[in-house]
Amino acid sequence: MTDLNAVDKAIEGKTEQSLDELGRLCAQPSISAQGVGMQACAELVKEMLQARGFEAQILPAGGFPVVFAERKGRSDRTLLFYNHYDVQPPEPLELWETPPFEPAIREGKMYARGVSDDKGHILCRLAAIDALLAVDDELPCNVKFIIEGEEETGSVNLSAFIEDHTDLLAADACIWEFGGVDHQGTPIQVAGLRGICYVELSVQTATCDAHSGLGGSIFPNAAWRLTWALNTLKTPDEHIRLPGFYDKVKPPTERDLVLLDQLPDPADDYLKRYGLPGFIKGIEGGLELKRETIFTPTCTICGLTSGYQGPGSKTVLPARASAKVDFRLVPDQDPEEVVLQLRNHLDEEGFGDIEIMLMGGERPARTDPDDPFLQMVVETAREVYGVPQLIQPMSGGSGPNHPFIHFLKLPVATAGVAYPGSSIHAPNENLVIDNFVAGVRHTARILVSFGAE
Amino acid sequence: MTDLNAVDKAIEGKTEQSLDELGRLCAQPSISAQGVGMQACAELVKEMLQARGFEAQILPAGGFPVVFAERKGRSDRTLLFYNHYDVQPPEPLELWETPPFEPAIREGKMYARGVSDDKGHILCRLAAIDALLAVDDELPCNVKFIIEGEEETGSVNLSAFIEDHTDLLAADACIWEFGGVDHQGTPIQVAGLRGICYVELSVQTATCDAHSGLGGSIFPNAAWRLTWALNTLKTPDEHIRLPGFYDKVKPPTERDLVLLDQLPDPADDYLKRYGLPGFIKGIEGGLELKRETIFTPTCTICGLTSGYQGPGSKTVLPARASAKVDFRLVPDQDPEEVVLQLRNHLDEEGFGDIEIMLMGGERPARTDPDDPFLQMVVETAREVYGVPQLIQPMSGGSGPNHPFIHFLKLPVATAGVAYPGSSIHAPNENLVIDNFVAGVRHTARILVSFGAE
Repeated sequence: MTDLNAVDKAIEGKTEQSLDELGRLCAQPSISAQGVGMQACAELVKEMLQARGFEAQILPAGGFPVVFAERKGRSDRTLLFYNHYDVQPPEPLELWETPPFEPAIREGKMYARGVSDDKGHILCRLAAIDALLAVDDELPCNVKFIIEGEEETGSVNLSAFIEDHTDLLAADACIWEFGGVDHQGTPIQVAGLRGICYVELSVQTATCDAHSGLGGSIFPNAAWRLTWALNTLKTPDEHIRLPGFYDKVKPPTERDLVLLDQLPDPADDYLKRYGLPGFIKGIEGGLELKRETIFTPTCTICGLTSGYQGPGSKTVLPARASAKVDFRLVPDQDPEEVVLQLRNHLDEEGFGDIEIMLMGGERPARTDPDDPFLQMVVETAREVYGVPQLIQPMSGGSGPNHPFIHFLKLPVATAGVAYPGSSIHAPNENLVIDNFVAGVRHTARILVSFGAE
Repeated sequence: MTDLNAVDKAIEGKTEQSLDELGRLCAQPSISAQGVGMQACAELVKEMLQARGFEAQILPAGGFPVVFAERKGRSDRTLLFYNHYDVQPPEPLELWETPPFEPAIREGKMYARGVSDDKGHILCRLAAIDALLAVDDELPCNVKFIIEGEEETGSVNLSAFIEDHTDLLAADACIWEFGGVDHQGTPIQVAGLRGICYVELSVQTATCDAHSGLGGSIFPNAAWRLTWALNTLKTPDEHIRLPGFYDKVKPPTERDLVLLDQLPDPADDYLKRYGLPGFIKGIEGGLELKRETIFTPTCTICGLTSGYQGPGSKTVLPARASAKVDFRLVPDQDPEEVVLQLRNHLDEEGFGDIEIMLMGGERPARTDPDDPFLQMVVETAREVYGVPQLIQPMSGGSGPNHPFIHFLKLPVATAGVAYPGSSIHAPNENLVIDNFVAGVRHTARILVSFGAE
């Protein structure tokens, strides 16, 4: 069994070098939404893996390529790390205290776009491997990396890539791209992700706008058509009206409710942070709030646009209107089924004129919170954080975990370097260096324990 | 009785001079929405009136001033011309073939912002007066002008100004600021205007946007609140649901229907020009289309805005949403009553969180199509256009005619220089010079006939 004290010392000794390397990775832009720096970043990641003795390759994946890497270890078991090298656009630039692609360290934090999401996690995995190799000649287990370049644009090609590469990606367990601690510094295990079905609904009722004084009584109005159609999707008491929508919804288990009950009550934080008058559906907080946040599927209008939106008044009758709508899905809902349900529903309700464009879909997926691998990750946190991870049975957010769980048949667990103040997707994205060290120590313990099983 | 042949000759002889003066007036920007050139334009209009022997003054009116002018004539009767010296903003500038404030003549048309709406009408009245004064020493009747500077921003101060100046504005009849011919060149008499109640509805459900993965199941969503609230205003079969909304609606009279029946059927033109699949409410055309266009009150969504509206997807839960909505009103509806009905309705339906901002209101008003003054204007068109004006009993559009008709107790008639291709409020606004001359000839005849009664 590897000497964990020696590993911790090696981590400590190499932290500066790891942060230098993280700075180099963050200095390389890789904005998938804008197609900036993607190939160069993939090459850099590949080189970093090769420097650790990995066989690494850049594989075409439909859009931006996937970096795949593999290194054998002592045990027969294989741990797969899923990460991504792409980052969110840095805009609005004027809100950054230092430029987003010029990493800067101040007051114990490194600031850069991607430093937490997800390049900090890539370096976390590499730093753990460095420390293990400094103490030992070989890794405790086989290690594979799949590092994609399209996570920030919905991982639209990842599922097909995984289906096409099941042998290459074969493993026994997977560590997810994110992880870390909550507001109190307690490490959190996120055991699943809701799915998503993101659509744009649009309608065009004429070739050009008309004057409302002319057309108001006689022309179809795109803004009205959209309003009426949206209204049929969900009632003001939050019931989603698509026939069949709730059929496959699995309620939380007794075990899920026990786990939820152990999580801190976020009610006061939400009410204060977002300036809310209260929650919907009469929810006050506690277990009910935690359960609804995660285990209820949603239909959210993310955006509305039509006609005149400037100051003052303009008497226009709009020819076009559109809405962005996302459905968050729980097991076993399916985004493709939701699109079909939506089309059927709109047709049935007399809104065949509303067009649906699917902008992104991911299926929900969960790992059993009592899965031995997940429990091992939970327990190995104790030595680093003083307490085991608190298990959140599912996140309200979404990601491409479904093909890992259902194609590759892997348990998926989270461990990492982030915290609620990381400002991911926002200006001044940052990484607390102490959190980074903790994440590296946890990752090293996961590798050691996994190899020893 | 004035020699109309001599008047026509004088008009012909002075057309170039009139167009020069119109060019000077159009070269003076007067954009009320942007506060550009307003005082200078009022001064210029005042000077032009003084040059015709009018006593003219610039009167404060709350916002931009009103130009008032008066000249005695042979008869005791007084004709009041209502016009406006402000113009619409010229944007988008790149679509103008020549700069909007550099009047240019090509192919029988003058191009400039305001050349038709409404400076061409101001010069039309002045040119008629010039010709009459060239033939005769005095005008056939007393003439007054009220030329406001806020028509393009909703004439928000005009009604109060008129109430405060009923003696100054006392007259026997009024010629409105617009007029002209239809697609076939037939002169049109517009005997009334619908009213308008323009509101912005808005709702704020939080102090900042949230991530839809976090808040979708638990936070109030401004876009949903707005959608549900709007939906309660009007059913998909176009019934406006505000209690009391239709109570004061006067249906068209038999006489109105006869007049409508004489107007050409605009169905094919509308369908083609706006690329419509058809009209709403099963309307196909003919009398039904003409009646609905004018005599039905409306509730039009002019604009919708909330959350993310850019390309692609963004998983945001909007804190704020708003809609611009206009109600077109028919006699005897009242915009202030509609705002009260709207507030009561939203409260009753559970939408007390929706705020209403009144952006503009004008009451509907009509002149009896058989009023002798209006009939005189209709008949005097015959000598100029070969046919009398076709009477449109009301326009679908709106304007500040209510205080003229109901405070000053004047019949209001239209005569002028515009045509459907004038591009008012749009780039390349233009005036057909032949239409200008016809409008001047018609205006001169109106003055002569009015003085002779």
